[in-house]
Amino acid sequence: MNHPNHKDKLPSIKRIEGQVKGIAKMVEEERYCIDILNQIKAIKNSISAVERKILQTHLRGCVKNSLDGGPDFDSKIDELMKVLKR
Amino acid sequence: MNHPNHKDKLPSIKRIEGQVKGIAKMVEEERYCIDILNQIKAIKNSISAVERKILQTHLRGCVKNSLDGGPDFDSKIDELMKVLKR
Amino acid sequence: MNHPNHKDKLPSIKRIEGQVKGIAKMVEEERYCIDILNQIKAIKNSISAVERKILQTHLRGCVKNSLDGGPDFDSKIDELMKVLKR
Amino acid sequence: MNHPNHKDKLPSIKRIEGQVKGIAKMVEEERYCIDILNQIKAIKNSISAVERKILQTHLRGCVKNSLDGGPDFDSKIDELMKVLKR
Repeated sequence: MNHPNHKDKLPSIKRIEGQVKGIAKMVEEERYCIDILNQIKAIKNSISAVERKILQTHLRGCVKNSLDGGPDFDSKIDELMKVLKR
Repeated sequence: MNHPNHKDKLPSIKRIEGQVKGIAKMVEEERYCIDILNQIKAIKNSISAVERKILQTHLRGCVKNSLDGGPDFDSKIDELMKVLKR
Repeated sequence: MNHPNHKDKLPSIKRIEGQVKGIAKMVEEERYCIDILNQIKAIKNSISAVERKILQTHLRGCVKNSLDGGPDFDSKIDELMKVLKR
Repeated sequence: MNHPNHKDKLPSIKRIEGQVKGIAKMVEEERYCIDILNQIKAIKNSISAVERKILQTHLRGCVKNSLDGGPDFDSKIDELMKVLKR
């Protein structure tokens, strides 16, 4: 299968792993619920950011490769990504 | 601060940590983008499930406790709405 | 059933109705997809804002009222969690 | 601008307009908050469904046209759409 490499996202993924460990620590330290919930929101945002980057790489790589390519494809995808970002 | 304990959620949080490690491994093994994206969706669902459980405990605990005719119920609700808003 | 009135949200709901009509118009005029998608995002945000306001009124009203030492607070919370779960 | 037509989505959009009117009616009739919130969830789902259909048409139309096209592009997009669907 022809597809792009996502290794540049590894630092972000490691950071999310650290954030999840942070939640476990907050729970062990009996921190206030709202603080934990806010931290969970932060993790969700981090994960969504990685998700969007992988999707974008996928569109630019796999999807583009599946075609013969055209010059204005990348700007189409950028446009699309902005919408997907919400 | 009077609030409930969330330690019963620790196993779920540990499982999420494992899922995040799994993503890092998939990326290192250059697994297909769509498989990685599907796994990311699974993590988001796991995190949302923990989030809902903490919210429920918070409502049953902190918010209920603030209600012994207490004036600070409304501020509890404001605090909660800010979290829900993201 | 004892519950608060949401009539102050009617202008926002009417505005959402107008936004939905706007989408139909954009489609009829064959406007560009991305513009339509952006407008759909705007509607989703408007609806979420109304949703949060109703939820807040519900928490400040119904849920608070169920709490005069009332046994049915927990069922109010369960009911609410079901909605939040989607 | 070269882009596809979305007029086949008009019946769904009209249905959403009806759902929004339904919410206004529920509010006017002072229906229970949780029932209104559930109906709002239903509208959000309907809007997301239209959103996904427009996005799919866009990818199959605009994005595809922006390239020279390849035989396996549609299946790539289908795969993508399943992920976007959540």
